[in-house]
Amino acid sequence: MSEVFQTERIVEFHHTDAARIMHFATYFLFMEEAEHAFLRHLGMSVMGLYEGTKLSWPRVSAKCDYTDSVGFEDVVTINVRVGRLGSKSVTYSHRLFHDSRPIAEGEITVVCCLYDDRGDVPRSIVIPDTIRERLQPYVTKS
Amino acid sequence: MSEVFQTERIVEFHHTDAARIMHFATYFLFMEEAEHAFLRHLGMSVMGLYEGTKLSWPRVSAKCDYTDSVGFEDVVTINVRVGRLGSKSVTYSHRLFHDSRPIAEGEITVVCCLYDDRGDVPRSIVIPDTIRERLQPYVTKS
Amino acid sequence: MSEVFQTERIVEFHHTDAARIMHFATYFLFMEEAEHAFLRHLGMSVMGLYEGTKLSWPRVSAKCDYTDSVGFEDVVTINVRVGRLGSKSVTYSHRLFHDSRPIAEGEITVVCCLYDDRGDVPRSIVIPDTIRERLQPYVTKS
Amino acid sequence: MSEVFQTERIVEFHHTDAARIMHFATYFLFMEEAEHAFLRHLGMSVMGLYEGTKLSWPRVSAKCDYTDSVGFEDVVTINVRVGRLGSKSVTYSHRLFHDSRPIAEGEITVVCCLYDDRGDVPRSIVIPDTIRERLQPYVTKS
Repeated sequence: MSEVFQTERIVEFHHTDAARIMHFATYFLFMEEAEHAFLRHLGMSVMGLYEGTKLSWPRVSAKCDYTDSVGFEDVVTINVRVGRLGSKSVTYSHRLFHDSRPIAEGEITVVCCLYDDRGDVPRSIVIPDTIRERLQPYVTKS
Repeated sequence: MSEVFQTERIVEFHHTDAARIMHFATYFLFMEEAEHAFLRHLGMSVMGLYEGTKLSWPRVSAKCDYTDSVGFEDVVTINVRVGRLGSKSVTYSHRLFHDSRPIAEGEITVVCCLYDDRGDVPRSIVIPDTIRERLQPYVTKS
Repeated sequence: MSEVFQTERIVEFHHTDAARIMHFATYFLFMEEAEHAFLRHLGMSVMGLYEGTKLSWPRVSAKCDYTDSVGFEDVVTINVRVGRLGSKSVTYSHRLFHDSRPIAEGEITVVCCLYDDRGDVPRSIVIPDTIRERLQPYVTKS
Repeated sequence: MSEVFQTERIVEFHHTDAARIMHFATYFLFMEEAEHAFLRHLGMSVMGLYEGTKLSWPRVSAKCDYTDSVGFEDVVTINVRVGRLGSKSVTYSHRLFHDSRPIAEGEITVVCCLYDDRGDVPRSIVIPDTIRERLQPYVTKS
């Protein structure tokens, strides 16, 4: 069994729209917030340093399947696993719940990059072992 | 050849993030804005009426593949086609460009729904012919 | 001495902008989130019921003075007091801190309103006593 | 009479909230978008260069008085003037309309700053004459 990281968010008023439910794009904000909380939990940051150089994780794809809606002040639980741990990329798998009821499943794929001195130009690298080891327990098993 | 609907957006300052590029979730806002502009172009609204009853289109899935980044004040062109015109659902296909350079491709699938009197509870229906006919020219051919 | 309600938020990546600090409009989101958390703390909701009718609080003014910036993953403490408890309106006073350092002060004035059956049309009313009593301890003394 | 810069925005679905109106914080996004469009109209950018050094305009205060609401797909006209042209600061005055009906008035005060090489640390300066001259016609007369 793989481990799972879990965090919670409340649906704020500005997350809702005129359909009186959480706007579909907010799910991507929640997934990213959960990914960043996961990295902090592992003692890292999505805006980190590797041997003195800025290391970050630009997104190359994101998707979400919506199975139910949530409204203002609903509490959303977000489960994060690593769906795929590639050589240079990580695919995070997210499952979102409200009151134990699944509301959405999503994936975000990010690429490990070092940045130039100004922090503006990314260059992809093989994920350093110190990072790989921390992500490994969360890789989903088929 | 299918028709294509095209609209433009400028990358506003609040669309950017600390990586100095447009935030990945903003692409979904642009895709939705383009879809709604497309419906207006067809003489409709995503929050419309059908025989006196509120008709709208809740999202069931959304995805985006990012191929390049854009920064503050870049102009983004968004092309909208109908990737699939189902019985009750529509899959919009979006291609985003900056200076003729592709920056992202995405899809959003929505379901045709009527709402109760308060406008809060959706119930899926077969897409009315008057709507289907307007979307038909934009269906992509294989 | 008046009481104070305190809550915390972390600066998420999507809260930042290309200046690598939290975007100025996000402070208003934090102030509103703190107000709504304050109401929940008092056993209420900003989207509440009064004698079976929907009661809510449309905003009539908002302002913020910025004294320092915060960046990604900084923790922001938000203090909420009631700057003025009017007959029909409430002015919330917010002070935002990072590491005990003041970063902003703001005010949001809201009006107590009942809504029609569809929940769309507000009509201002005198703040009910049951609500007034709960806000009273947080009114700032000159 | 002072000149006025005018631009328009449509209320997008993601600008609305569960009260079925444009969220109060979105007015600040519209005001900032109008300010940046105004600067482009004057041949400048809020993220500009001055003698080879990055020049930008951090916000020190923002406020808005709301007089009426707008809903999905309403068109908002934003009028921008310069309420005060200080030595180092500019106060923009915004008036927002829908169908010639005033919906809000706001002000945003920004400070002229040069940035360090990495573009991260601002230092306030006297507004260069070439910029002052372009803003001058838009200063409101008492």
